[in-house]
Amino acid sequence: MSIITLTTDWSKGDYYVAAVKGAILKQVPDCTIIDVSHDIKQFQTSHAAFLLKHSFPHFPAETIHIIGVNTEISNDEPFIVCRIANQYFLGIDNGQFSLISETPPELIVEIQPNKFNLQLQTFPVLNLFVDVACELAKGTDILTLGIQKTKIKQQIEFNPAIDENSINARIIYTDSYGNAITNITREIFDRVAKERKFNIWIQTRKNEITQIINSYNEVEGGTLLAVFNSLNLLEIAINKGSAVDLLGLKAFDSTIIVRFKPSF
Amino acid sequence: MSIITLTTDWSKGDYYVAAVKGAILKQVPDCTIIDVSHDIKQFQTSHAAFLLKHSFPHFPAETIHIIGVNTEISNDEPFIVCRIANQYFLGIDNGQFSLISETPPELIVEIQPNKFNLQLQTFPVLNLFVDVACELAKGTDILTLGIQKTKIKQQIEFNPAIDENSINARIIYTDSYGNAITNITREIFDRVAKERKFNIWIQTRKNEITQIINSYNEVEGGTLLAVFNSLNLLEIAINKGSAVDLLGLKAFDSTIIVRFKPSF
Amino acid sequence: MSIITLTTDWSKGDYYVAAVKGAILKQVPDCTIIDVSHDIKQFQTSHAAFLLKHSFPHFPAETIHIIGVNTEISNDEPFIVCRIANQYFLGIDNGQFSLISETPPELIVEIQPNKFNLQLQTFPVLNLFVDVACELAKGTDILTLGIQKTKIKQQIEFNPAIDENSINARIIYTDSYGNAITNITREIFDRVAKERKFNIWIQTRKNEITQIINSYNEVEGGTLLAVFNSLNLLEIAINKGSAVDLLGLKAFDSTIIVRFKPSF
Repeated sequence: MSIITLTTDWSKGDYYVAAVKGAILKQVPDCTIIDVSHDIKQFQTSHAAFLLKHSFPHFPAETIHIIGVNTEISNDEPFIVCRIANQYFLGIDNGQFSLISETPPELIVEIQPNKFNLQLQTFPVLNLFVDVACELAKGTDILTLGIQKTKIKQQIEFNPAIDENSINARIIYTDSYGNAITNITREIFDRVAKERKFNIWIQTRKNEITQIINSYNEVEGGTLLAVFNSLNLLEIAINKGSAVDLLGLKAFDSTIIVRFKPSF
Repeated sequence: MSIITLTTDWSKGDYYVAAVKGAILKQVPDCTIIDVSHDIKQFQTSHAAFLLKHSFPHFPAETIHIIGVNTEISNDEPFIVCRIANQYFLGIDNGQFSLISETPPELIVEIQPNKFNLQLQTFPVLNLFVDVACELAKGTDILTLGIQKTKIKQQIEFNPAIDENSINARIIYTDSYGNAITNITREIFDRVAKERKFNIWIQTRKNEITQIINSYNEVEGGTLLAVFNSLNLLEIAINKGSAVDLLGLKAFDSTIIVRFKPSF
Repeated sequence: MSIITLTTDWSKGDYYVAAVKGAILKQVPDCTIIDVSHDIKQFQTSHAAFLLKHSFPHFPAETIHIIGVNTEISNDEPFIVCRIANQYFLGIDNGQFSLISETPPELIVEIQPNKFNLQLQTFPVLNLFVDVACELAKGTDILTLGIQKTKIKQQIEFNPAIDENSINARIIYTDSYGNAITNITREIFDRVAKERKFNIWIQTRKNEITQIINSYNEVEGGTLLAVFNSLNLLEIAINKGSAVDLLGLKAFDSTIIVRFKPSF
């Protein structure tokens, strides 16, 4: 039993998703196909990488992930397969693989489109990625599919700026509930905090939080709150409401400052 | 072959759905996972219950349904598994189970989070519900998963007010076609009607219907109509149009009055 | 292993899709169910046909496709099963089958609702189409399901008007990227072009293209371009932008004129 997942920016009103699923089932009839998401913001490679980074660790070994965002193949950005934590990721080498995992891939193989029957055309996922994914699903050795490489392109993730008494961070993602996820990990927070009191300001000093709770239901509906979420990232939210809407927050735009009481 | 369904208010642009599916397949590789819906209106437990009520009877016995809406566990609203008509339902005991079926569950078991490796965190579906669902899928006896209870919390469904010559009812649901579904069952209607003529008024006397048809194609496009739908609930619609938009109808808000001719 | 696909105009917030999937799994537990799309524009039979036309050839033989758009059965538009290229299509005979494939079906069978337990009701897909699909999935001979017919209803597809020096065409579809797909096939273009130079005008002479490229990445972002897509249809697009929005294009409305240089 093999699993192939799809992460794309294609709308459900198109025929693309169905064509790709049909083509997979024609080659691997008992394949389990899982939609990670077809609602990636268009051309937003970092959105796709964010979803995969936080979902792939829950999948079984040998799962095959097709990334169908920005799939134009060029000499500068070839089509590659990476093996990360015993799973396979297929997509363009445009920096996205460096966002999916902090440890480098165990194996990287560049696919030669000519080895497959690729004509010049506008749908490489259907005409190339699916063939490679199905080869992997059938047990073909990744090394026979192309030329091994040693490096993937790097894309620097936003890390918060820290000094002794503060963390200067950003919203990196807003979810469908209107919660805003920052790039402050619990580890960074604890390291700077050293158990001191603090103020968290979201964009302005008017939006202030002075404690981090453990669970949404510790506060009333409508309360502005901060919580470490299941990713261990500090999340700004309004219980039963949308912090994004009410505070006007935007990913990669809104600033979060944590100011710790100087310890003298 | 086991079936697990998901009913949540998570958007497809998040990683939650994919993480949950991956986690299920890691434990039960040949599981069939069905999305009942991920478009539940946020925090609307009654919306989730409505969809499950009308879809679960079509599923095979032993199907396992995860309800991922309002999933914060508390002493007052614990996490439970109910067996209803030989199927399993997992969720918080907040009254939703009483809306899914009119007959009480055959079995109710309260899950002790400590028995599973639950840390304080914000994603109980991934970290707890999935484990319980997979235990059931692997054939574990429900009674070994927690402590048996005898009662679920009740949430009263809206029933229409009736007297000898009228039914005073409400819209309880509006579907994607703009049809408005009332809480008037065919049984209630027939009982009060006693085959008399009637007027149905939707919000105002200007929106009047004087007969119930059998099928949409009995009337022209654009006609306001009433029909008993496949749930045997009276449905107000405009053929090939949206009654909801044109008449400004809202679930749990708009009034429907049926007035029967006094029989003297 | 059988495959049943669903193409409907039902919203994900309804219970319809889940009920149909449950009903299929109850009859054929190991069936693979694929959503072609549930985002068909409401009542737009031609939208559903377009998606199936371009996705079904990628599916394996014996795949069963349920078309859940405009499903009211009448004497004039009966419920039929067509076999096309060794796959099965179930739906109302309203002309849609003539849009799915250019070659006529290999077999056409009209289903007699009475043979199945169809009550007067508003959900024929759940109460009739699913039963027929499951019979096919279990290997029942299509000819035993109803009465063989020799013809399907025809719906004329838009073909471009051509003369010696020009093609007068239309947008027939706009995809989720804002690309506009015309009804100009590569074959028609080449036949009229005879390798001459040309101007393509999109709605007005101000929107002019004078060459057809092979791949989006041949031009800068923001460039208006024309390309034969994977369907061999001429596609008008703006690289990394929306031609539909920027040029105000609409399916079945916007005109495309290709003017070839007279060859004297």
